[in-house]
Amino acid sequence: MNSTHKLIMVLSIALTLVLGSLSGAGAEDFSDFVDEKGKISNPGDVRTAWSHLGSWIVPRKSDDQYGFHDVYTRQSTIEAYQKTGQFPDGAMLIREIRNVDSASLPTGKTFWAGVLQSRFVMVKDQQGRFPDNPHWGDGWGWAHFEPENPEVNVSQGYKQDCLDCHVSARGTDYVNVRGYPPLR
Amino acid sequence: MNSTHKLIMVLSIALTLVLGSLSGAGAEDFSDFVDEKGKISNPGDVRTAWSHLGSWIVPRKSDDQYGFHDVYTRQSTIEAYQKTGQFPDGAMLIREIRNVDSASLPTGKTFWAGVLQSRFVMVKDQQGRFPDNPHWGDGWGWAHFEPENPEVNVSQGYKQDCLDCHVSARGTDYVNVRGYPPLR
Repeated sequence: MNSTHKLIMVLSIALTLVLGSLSGAGAEDFSDFVDEKGKISNPGDVRTAWSHLGSWIVPRKSDDQYGFHDVYTRQSTIEAYQKTGQFPDGAMLIREIRNVDSASLPTGKTFWAGVLQSRFVMVKDQQGRFPDNPHWGDGWGWAHFEPENPEVNVSQGYKQDCLDCHVSARGTDYVNVRGYPPLR
Repeated sequence: MNSTHKLIMVLSIALTLVLGSLSGAGAEDFSDFVDEKGKISNPGDVRTAWSHLGSWIVPRKSDDQYGFHDVYTRQSTIEAYQKTGQFPDGAMLIREIRNVDSASLPTGKTFWAGVLQSRFVMVKDQQGRFPDNPHWGDGWGWAHFEPENPEVNVSQGYKQDCLDCHVSARGTDYVNVRGYPPLR
């Protein structure tokens, strides 16, 4: 074996080690809120520690997503999106849905966010890590938690429980970014 | 002069220096956004760096405070309020007012925050630092900025331009805290 062969062998071993460590990061080190099988845990109340993406309101109780919606993400996610126009791998969007409270005040007829009803979570997955898990697909992990039992993802699967409302925003990666001033 | 007298003299000088530095903090070191005469400057876009207190909406254009209102403060202010039930000295509340945009979406008839129209600022002043300044009183400094000329406080004085809407919340230090989930 001459020196060129030795160099090629050393480089091959190094490349194998590097690729191995990268692929190892696929599921285990992906997110603090996702386990190795793709189970998404509830990040809880992030509204004062994370950044506010934006709020929106569906005031009519008969509408599908009635409520006052407040959406949060990490500040680093907003900065990444502002640079690239894409949500980075592992990005999380947390949406709180609250009752709509209202009153006639000196400001006018005013509506604000009341009692917490649910928390929806999306986790960006650029690698399609969990193809057999019904809570993962279309580039995201999807979960739905309720305050009475905050550890349990009550969604039956994102295709049944999440996609209907998000599909109209498919062109912006299933997120209606026009509602979020920092992303416009 | 014996050693006791010397000690008392040294302690007196030290106390004078400490008290002098404390009283010097009254106006000069009060806030990065308030000068020594009480002029309030526009902190600009804090929505991703500061914490979201809450949002509220006045959807009817004919109402006094028409718009989508997003309110921000420092995370440390929320933590202080949660401990004491009071806004700490120097606390700032920043309220963005935006147009109300809306559409019929799969979520239902949905309203969200559009283009920025104005930014209102309140600065907590527990010491009544600027008694002759028309933008200060009732425990706060008050300012109103518009995007076209963001350096200029366009308010004529808080009694004319701010108090009417806040006076109904006098019992909670002129802030309608029921609209802000972290303060409830």
